[in-house]
Amino acid sequence: PVQETVKAYIAGFLDGDGCIMAQLVKRSGYVYGYQIRTSIVFYQKTKNESILRWLKRQFLEGYIRQRNDEMSEYTIVGMNSVKRLLEKLLPYLRLKKKLAKAIIRIIDDWPANGRPPLKQYLKLCLQVDASALYNYSKKRTITTAVVEKYLTKN
Amino acid sequence: PVQETVKAYIAGFLDGDGCIMAQLVKRSGYVYGYQIRTSIVFYQKTKNESILRWLKRQFLEGYIRQRNDEMSEYTIVGMNSVKRLLEKLLPYLRLKKKLAKAIIRIIDDWPANGRPPLKQYLKLCLQVDASALYNYSKKRTITTAVVEKYLTKN
Repeated sequence: PVQETVKAYIAGFLDGDGCIMAQLVKRSGYVYGYQIRTSIVFYQKTKNESILRWLKRQFLEGYIRQRNDEMSEYTIVGMNSVKRLLEKLLPYLRLKKKLAKAIIRIIDDWPANGRPPLKQYLKLCLQVDASALYNYSKKRTITTAVVEKYLTKN
Repeated sequence: PVQETVKAYIAGFLDGDGCIMAQLVKRSGYVYGYQIRTSIVFYQKTKNESILRWLKRQFLEGYIRQRNDEMSEYTIVGMNSVKRLLEKLLPYLRLKKKLAKAIIRIIDDWPANGRPPLKQYLKLCLQVDASALYNYSKKRTITTAVVEKYLTKN
């Protein structure tokens, strides 16, 4: 089990320089055309990558990749993994606490069989839109509106 | 007293998105022309400034200023304040632990009367140069060499 001060440290590290998100991702094989993907990403200069490896040893999930701009990323994807990790950090998160709660709510609302009816799916897409507002991303292009447009065409 | 999980959180936050540094700063009134200034800086978007105010409440030192690029900074300067704070965070720091130790060493080596002999002063300047290597700053212009040049001219 991860020590409380270690959880608190990682919560601070994530608040300072990490990212929690839910996204709508185009997937050709998917019934509704788009996957609801949740993820947590930690960034660091590749020369300091050892801190990412240390993080990975704490959680035993996710993967590390080296980008081509001397930065490395440690990413945890998938609803179960993301929820497990966020629940450990939640008591200590400050800046990203509301966002973390919103992501956990999306994961909890996702049906256990992985097959939400359309209406429920679109409601989850709206929750993804709402959670993204915490991240102030200007580049976000795939919103519920895009998914709805795709679904009416198909 | 600050709780251990709070210290750990702040250490993570500082490792992720903060700065610890020692600098040589031009000062007209100073015997050797340059001050050895130590500082700790936390950055955050001004819209999230409340986290900086929370940090300040933990330490009861330093000041917060709003920059003109929608960012705010919480800065702790001065050898005593910086040492007090670093000693609280040191057990939990990871990325910046060596840097923090190097800064504490500079502070410990600074004479209590604030008047080092020239030779000791220049040795401290070299320690500042060495500590700056941990920060990978490319903009750093005032090095011990600059101070020595100034002192031979005056």
